[in-house]
Formats: sequence, structure tokens, C-alpha cells
Amino acid sequence: MKQSVLTSPYLDRLIAFEKQILAHQPQIEAWFRQKWQAHRPPFYGSVDIRNAAYKISSVDMNLFPGGFNNLNPQFLQSEIIAATDAMERTCPDAKSLLIVPENHTRNLFYLQNVFALAEIFRQAGFAVRLGSLNPEITQPTELTTAGGDTLLLEPLQRNGNRLSLADGFTPCVVLLNNDLSGGVPDILKNIEQKLLPPLHAGWTTRRKTQHFAAFNRVASEFAQLVGIDEWQINPYFAACGGLNFHERTGEERLADEVSQLLQKIQQKYAENHIQDEPFVIVKADAGTYGMGVMSVKSPDEVLGLNRKNRNKMATVKEGLEVAEVIIQEGVYTCETVGGAVAEPVVYMMDRFVLGGFYRVHEGRSASENLNASGMRFIPLSGEIPQTEDELLQQYQQNRCFEQWDTAAIPQLAANPDCVCNRFYVYGVIARLSLLAAALELENHIQAA
Amino acid sequence: MKQSVLTSPYLDRLIAFEKQILAHQPQIEAWFRQKWQAHRPPFYGSVDIRNAAYKISSVDMNLFPGGFNNLNPQFLQSEIIAATDAMERTCPDAKSLLIVPENHTRNLFYLQNVFALAEIFRQAGFAVRLGSLNPEITQPTELTTAGGDTLLLEPLQRNGNRLSLADGFTPCVVLLNNDLSGGVPDILKNIEQKLLPPLHAGWTTRRKTQHFAAFNRVASEFAQLVGIDEWQINPYFAACGGLNFHERTGEERLADEVSQLLQKIQQKYAENHIQDEPFVIVKADAGTYGMGVMSVKSPDEVLGLNRKNRNKMATVKEGLEVAEVIIQEGVYTCETVGGAVAEPVVYMMDRFVLGGFYRVHEGRSASENLNASGMRFIPLSGEIPQTEDELLQQYQQNRCFEQWDTAAIPQLAANPDCVCNRFYVYGVIARLSLLAAALELENHIQAA
Repeated sequence: MKQSVLTSPYLDRLIAFEKQILAHQPQIEAWFRQKWQAHRPPFYGSVDIRNAAYKISSVDMNLFPGGFNNLNPQFLQSEIIAATDAMERTCPDAKSLLIVPENHTRNLFYLQNVFALAEIFRQAGFAVRLGSLNPEITQPTELTTAGGDTLLLEPLQRNGNRLSLADGFTPCVVLLNNDLSGGVPDILKNIEQKLLPPLHAGWTTRRKTQHFAAFNRVASEFAQLVGIDEWQINPYFAACGGLNFHERTGEERLADEVSQLLQKIQQKYAENHIQDEPFVIVKADAGTYGMGVMSVKSPDEVLGLNRKNRNKMATVKEGLEVAEVIIQEGVYTCETVGGAVAEPVVYMMDRFVLGGFYRVHEGRSASENLNASGMRFIPLSGEIPQTEDELLQQYQQNRCFEQWDTAAIPQLAANPDCVCNRFYVYGVIARLSLLAAALELENHIQAA
Repeated sequence: MKQSVLTSPYLDRLIAFEKQILAHQPQIEAWFRQKWQAHRPPFYGSVDIRNAAYKISSVDMNLFPGGFNNLNPQFLQSEIIAATDAMERTCPDAKSLLIVPENHTRNLFYLQNVFALAEIFRQAGFAVRLGSLNPEITQPTELTTAGGDTLLLEPLQRNGNRLSLADGFTPCVVLLNNDLSGGVPDILKNIEQKLLPPLHAGWTTRRKTQHFAAFNRVASEFAQLVGIDEWQINPYFAACGGLNFHERTGEERLADEVSQLLQKIQQKYAENHIQDEPFVIVKADAGTYGMGVMSVKSPDEVLGLNRKNRNKMATVKEGLEVAEVIIQEGVYTCETVGGAVAEPVVYMMDRFVLGGFYRVHEGRSASENLNASGMRFIPLSGEIPQTEDELLQQYQQNRCFEQWDTAAIPQLAANPDCVCNRFYVYGVIARLSLLAAALELENHIQAA
């Protein structure tokens, strides 16, 4: 991996924070173990982290991670051990697994993720097949991934209360790698097989505000445990509903909320002698894929939205209308890889951190959302690929994601700022968000 | 790692065998998962494997592995995940761990193993301390390992039915890294803490013949599962008791057993058109550390033992008298690393293969026991170190053990003969022996 570089006038605070975390490592791990006994961790997940040196936080938590292809192959053995354990806890007798991927069969990078995910379970000794919800997949269809591997997508079928494939393949575990943004298809409802993650983990049910409400509880308890100000790991947020961006309904209320949050951040910045300019991120509360996201430094920016930006905010993946947003404290990222702004993404399976990568985007600044349209395809060189061949070439050179090549294992004797310790800290932050997701899923069940 | 090289006129048989194993990978993994549900795997273990191309087998199974320092650091994340899982299954609330090492505090390489083992659990977030049975350790004593790391050995104490250290440290899990060759010390008896592995896993109770009797059952079932001749993975063996090497009691009976076993092997070699000369290994039934081991090609060799060889066979570690031996079919090793005869050693924790290394010994031939006195210290160069400094230098250059740098993960699309597939096959063979150890430990409990 290219060395990631941190540039910030607040680096001493980062070192102090990392020292504090490392000094509490046994307490932190014991606390997590106790939490995982009380709260079943999600089957898998990924967390987007922003590091502003004076603050490190999860800014998003994905329960259907789509970047297993971006993990360094050196983590494969850990992935297999974690996957074996996760499967055994779910269905001790499982011999096979049906993966239900997203419908976008033309995204060769996503297909590479599906291949990587399937390989983990294959190498753990499970028979793995892919059942597609895509109405275009009417018969077994071979697709080629970005890396040149072959996937066989088969139409998902239902026999009674069991999902199956045409030849009768009907395993006891079904793994969703589809975030259900377009709603829960009937074929998935009330099946008797173990469906992981559960349907209510999809964006039909999930709300970012609920995740970060749960994160508040987790972060508060964790901050007490290690003796830090909770704000160091937890961004402020507010909710705003009843919006209609096309018709400009609720714009004033949104501006008010933005204004209040910016003031709250400014106050905290002043208390902590931070010179940065506060900003917030306005995101669709049920959004994903970096759609419906705005970075805002003044309430005026949400008042005077032009048609293009209103359209951008109005709908997200699968054409869903956005009526509710989360307004989240923006966290600057002070990390760069090869000169481009970078944010770490941490992958987990069950309660284990597997590895991670850096999402990098040369065209974006430190206060912008990096999971932006085009993010996957704008390489570090800044040259936008013109043909599919160029795009594949860039992929194979891995110029959009910088894989971690070090495990998130603390080296207590080493410099707190060394890369394994930094990744350990990121792994701790990511697990806080994973724990919040566990609480969030429990709340759905209690509410249902 | 230096490339390991296989040289054998029977290589085509090895490839066919590896293909057969790989073709049954999902069935094999499902079978292991089912077995581990019925039989709790030992906490950890290592298996010595010999590969004769026409035959690959476990020849020894150690329940107190002492070479964690020889594992490639790239496997550390897997080790931590496996250790976390193993600890959680043992004692879900454990926050700390007391390791009881062997008494040989002057073996700096063994101390490095203790350091490596402790680090796995430390990095998994457990507080780890070392409680010594060594009567010379009367107060907390700092020792320096071969790699220059520091270990704090503290005298093991007992308060009521709990093991502890002087300051009251008394964790719920005690991990033995001491094979109890010298008997079970009273201090370890009837403690209320979870003691892993259990006392009856020590060489006070264990017998190699019992392990290989259990291995017979495992190998037979496995051979049926994958459609091979059980002999391909299972060496013949016989037991011989009532011996006294000093007084030459039982020598004739031993020679008879050797003779019969050699005939049995010769018959199998003839059936399978194998030109090798049969040999057997005579080993103390409760022995370890490569002590009390003889490689024998004719019954005459055990009849005419000179005083030196009688002494060699008569006592093993901690001065134990050898009255019972296992006579085991010898398996040639056709693998070399850097020109020296090599045998793979596979390390496991709970049900997971972690990694392995090659034990190499330039001074030995393909039919000899490589776990021989001097094995650790005779480097590939053949130059025997004269000073401790030279010895340490060789250690740091890792010239006696060649670490695996590839995980034991099958690549079904690759050549069956590629290194990951070979290591996968070794991992399967090692787990057969681990399963046999699980049965062996259950038999102790049923017999008690």
C-alpha cells in the first residue's frame, strides 16, 4: 500500500487519543466480548471512518458490504475462520449457502465483490450458489467480473416457504448481499430458512438516524470506559422529516436544523481551540451508495438549491423519494494516500475485524463525501477512463482503493502512531458502529 | 520461504491423492464441522507429518505445542481470531489468562515460543501472565528470549482450589504449555479454574498407541468419505510393553513385533509396487521431545543394542523410564527444503489450522526421525554453532525452521500440486490427528 499520510495541526491530539485507546486495550476487548454476549453481532458489516485528528468517528455503517474484493488477500485465512464461526453460530449443520446479490449485473466491480464473498465461503468448505432477484435473470447466466472471474447467476425461486434454485438447491442459510433499497420483494418474506442479515437490516426499514441514536448510547458508554470526551468519537446529528425537495417543502425547517447544528459544532470547536470551519452532511435517512448527500457549511446552501441539486437530493437508489434526512456533523478527513483525500473503510464479519481499505478521491476536498458518484472510477491520476478497457485496467491496478496490508492488531510496545496501531484504533471505532447496528436491529424487533 | 522440493518416483500418486482431496473439499469440511459438533477439539495442537508421495500421514500429535515462535507473523490475525473464539467457548467472561510453561528456562527458543503464545492472547485483549512450576523460580524473574523479548516468570501459587500469583492474580482460565512428562504436580490437581488442555492430556496419561488407535477409527471413516485406501494416510503400528532397556528385558518380543510389522509393510509395498525399503520407528509410548526414538530396518537392530543406544531408549524427558513403546510404520519423507530433509509441522487452535513450518535437518536421512537431539541447533549450513551467540544468530536467521508463508487454503482452480493446495492437504491430515486426539481425550474421561 502507498503510505497514508496524516497532515493536521492537531496531530498531537491524535497521538494522545491513540495512546489512550492502546492503554485500555484489555478493558476495551473485555467490554466488546461482554457486549457481544448480550447483543448478537450482525453477520457482516463495513464502516466508513473519518479521521480529523482531534476526532475519529464512524460516519456510516453498511450491513450489506459490497467491497470484499478490495480486501487484501492476506486476510483471507482470517475471513475463512470468521466466516466458519459465523456460519456455525447461525446454522451448525449448514453445508451450503445461497447468496442473493444486488441486481446491478453490469457493475463488474460489484460482481468481483460477489465473487470474493462467495470464495470465502467456498474455501471454508460450503457449497455456494447465487440466486438473483433480477427479473432479467430468467435462466442460469454466466457473467464475467472485473478481475476476469466467472459468476453463475441463477434465478431465485421459491418452493413453499423455502428459497431455492431451479434444480432444487435449497440450503438452510441465505445470505443477503442486497440492501433492499427498493423494498422487500415478496419472494423473501416469511421464508423458513435462516436469512442473514434479517430483512429489517435492509434500507426499507433502516434509518441512519436510528443507527446514530444507538451509536450515541454505545459511544457514551465507551467514552466513559476509556476516559475520553464522547465528542471525540461521536458526531452530532439531527433528523429532519416531511421534506419534498422537488416541491421545496420543508426547506426552511431543514435550514433551521442545519443552522442549529453548525452552531453546536462551532461551540465545540471553540471549546477545543479548533480552527476548522464547521460543516454538516445532509443525507437521505434511508440512503446509500453515496446518493442524496450534500456537504453544507451554511444554512443558505439548503435554501437556494437549484433544480439540479434538488433532483440530486430528491431521489436515491432504486428511485426512492427522499422525505427524511439526517443532518450529521461533518468530520474533516486529514488522511491522504498518494496525495488524494482518503477515508478508511473497515470490514467485519461477526465480531471480528477482517481488514480494510482506503476510499480515495482526488477530485474531492477534506470536507466532502468521498462515496460520491464517480468515486469508483476516478483514479488517482485524475484521468477519467473513456473506455471500459481503461476502466478495467485501472481497477486491476487498484488505483481507487488502497488496500490495507497490515492487520488491525495492536502493537503495544510500538509507537502509538504506527500503522498497525492506527488500524487497531480504526477497528475499535468500526466495532462501536457494529455494536450500534446490533442494538438498532434489536430495536426493530422490539418495535415490531 | 525457500521453496520446498518433492523428489520421488511416486509423484504422480501424490498428485492423484491431492486431486482426490481437493475434489472432496466441501464434503471434507462438512464432515469436520459435524465431527467438531460431536467432539470438542483440543484447545491447541501440532501435528508432525511425513510425506512419502504414495503416503501422507500424521506421525505424531502434540497437545502442548512449543513452536508458536516458528509460525509466520502473517498468520497472527488468524491466531487471534481463533484464540478469541477458543477462549469464549471455554469461559465466556474470561478477561485474563495464566499460562503455565515448561520448566526449561534456559532454552531461549522455548522461551520465544512462550512469548509468542502470550502475545496472541494479549493482542486478543486478555491480560496474560506466566506462572511457573519450576522450583528455581521463587520470585518474579525476568528472562530474555532468543529474539530478545522479555518474559516475566512468576512462581505459581495455590489459594484453596485456585491457582494464582503472589499478588492475587487468579484468572478463570489456566493454559498449560507444559506436557506434564514428569507427572502431574499436586498444585495442579482438582483446581476449580478451567485448565486447558486437561491434565489427562499430559504425557502422564497419554499414550501414543491410544492416539493412533483413535486415529485408526478417524482415518478409516475419512478414507471411506473420500474414496481412498486408508493405508495412504495411516501408518501401521503395534504396541510392546514390559520392556526394560537397561536390563534388556523384552528385547526378543520387541524384535518379533518389529519383524511382523516390517513384513506387513513389505506386503503393502509389494501390492502397491513401491520399491522403498520398509522401516519402523520405535518410540517411547509416552515420550516426547524426540527422545527415546529409534529408526529400525531389521529386527536385529533392536536385539543387538549397545549400551549407548540402550541408554538412549531407556529414559525420556524428566528421566522417565521407558517400559512401553509404539512400533510405528516408518514413512519416508520425500520433501526437502534447501537440500535438507524436511517434514511439515502443522499448528492448530481449536478446530482451525493456523499455519505451519518445516522441520529440517541436514544431518538426517529420509527415513530418520527429524525431531532429534540437535535438530534445533544444526543449521542448514551444517556448521554447528560453537557459542551461544552463533546459536542465537542462526535462530534469528531462522535457518532451522522454514516458516510457511502461504495459508492452508485450497485453491480449487489452481494446480493440485501448488503450495496452497499442498498445505491444505497437510491441514486436512493434521486435523484428522486433532480429531483423533479429541476422541483419545474423551476415552480418558470414559475410562476414569
